Amino acid sequence: MSAVTAPTRNGIDTATLFATLDLIKAQPELARFQFRATNRWLGGGHNRSTIKGFYAAGGEDTTRTETFEIDAGEPAILLGTDTGPNPAEYLLHALAACLTTSIVYVAAARKVELTSVESTITGDMDVRGALGVDDEPRNGFEAIRISFSVTGDAPPEKLREVVERAKRRSAVYDMVTNGVPVAVDVATG
Amino acid sequence: MSAVTAPTRNGIDTATLFATLDLIKAQPELARFQFRATNRWLGGGHNRSTIKGFYAAGGEDTTRTETFEIDAGEPAILLGTDTGPNPAEYLLHALAACLTTSIVYVAAARKVELTSVESTITGDMDVRGALGVDDEPRNGFEAIRISFSVTGDAPPEKLREVVERAKRRSAVYDMVTNGVPVAVDVATG
Repeated sequence: MSAVTAPTRNGIDTATLFATLDLIKAQPELARFQFRATNRWLGGGHNRSTIKGFYAAGGEDTTRTETFEIDAGEPAILLGTDTGPNPAEYLLHALAACLTTSIVYVAAARKVELTSVESTITGDMDVRGALGVDDEPRNGFEAIRISFSVTGDAPPEKLREVVERAKRRSAVYDMVTNGVPVAVDVATG
Repeated sequence: MSAVTAPTRNGIDTATLFATLDLIKAQPELARFQFRATNRWLGGGHNRSTIKGFYAAGGEDTTRTETFEIDAGEPAILLGTDTGPNPAEYLLHALAACLTTSIVYVAAARKVELTSVESTITGDMDVRGALGVDDEPRNGFEAIRISFSVTGDAPPEKLREVVERAKRRSAVYDMVTNGVPVAVDVATG
């Protein structure tokens, strides 16, 4: 029995964190994950994703008990009835959430106790692209800006280093800035 | 008074749809939109985005009455407590939702009455990247696959054309496949 108790920092069990990193270093095949969602159209601009199962560390996950259902919509000006955030807003959420979690985990590993992490994220779009009225503007956001406010028990320079490291490791930041190959297939009838 | 009543197709008011497209063609400056979210860390792998306001068609939106709050989390194996889908799962949702909405709107414009649009989306990740234990695997998904099942009152070839057009106009598909410049700034203390 060790005299060192497992320290929880930023709500993260750092003993488990380091044990997980060691395990994956030793057995890289455990690092293969697959995440999934199913989506169903509910009428107009309203659709719903269902998220539960995923593959991780050599097998299908059995720990997640809740099935998440998340609704997307469009506001009136985009011909919907506000049944949820729109898909582009969900992308902003995914990016802000991933950078935030990365900041929290990096800080935990580097012995920085955070007190708050807040952010505002914006995306600018010329909707002529997505609406198909002009081929020149791209369909998606031309630019995304995210402003973090981070406080904790480390000097500003150290907090900035944590954010910088989080950027270099965030899964969604990588995908949104660099792109991912997407294969689409269709069954009809 | 027109004898032609506004036809709703796939839950979309197509008269309003075409009027919106005509307006934006005539006044391209109305096509400038900005979407936003604010995010706050709630402990460990748990954070929450708040989404309401956006800029559209020359002014700040006043039609959306609901404030959306969406929670992100991580499963146990990624050191969280399943307080919501994780950020990478939200990105899959954003992509499936955007392609689905694009399919529905394109079909409405092309006089195709849809009966169902369902999809399954998966993303494959080697988590050594995001966990920072190896520099070789990328942080995000290596590949995303989405399989649509689409039914409606058009022949299979026409339904496939609708999906193909939706891909070419989807805002999130553009962003996820091509990437977007993201600016991150940080205030500390």
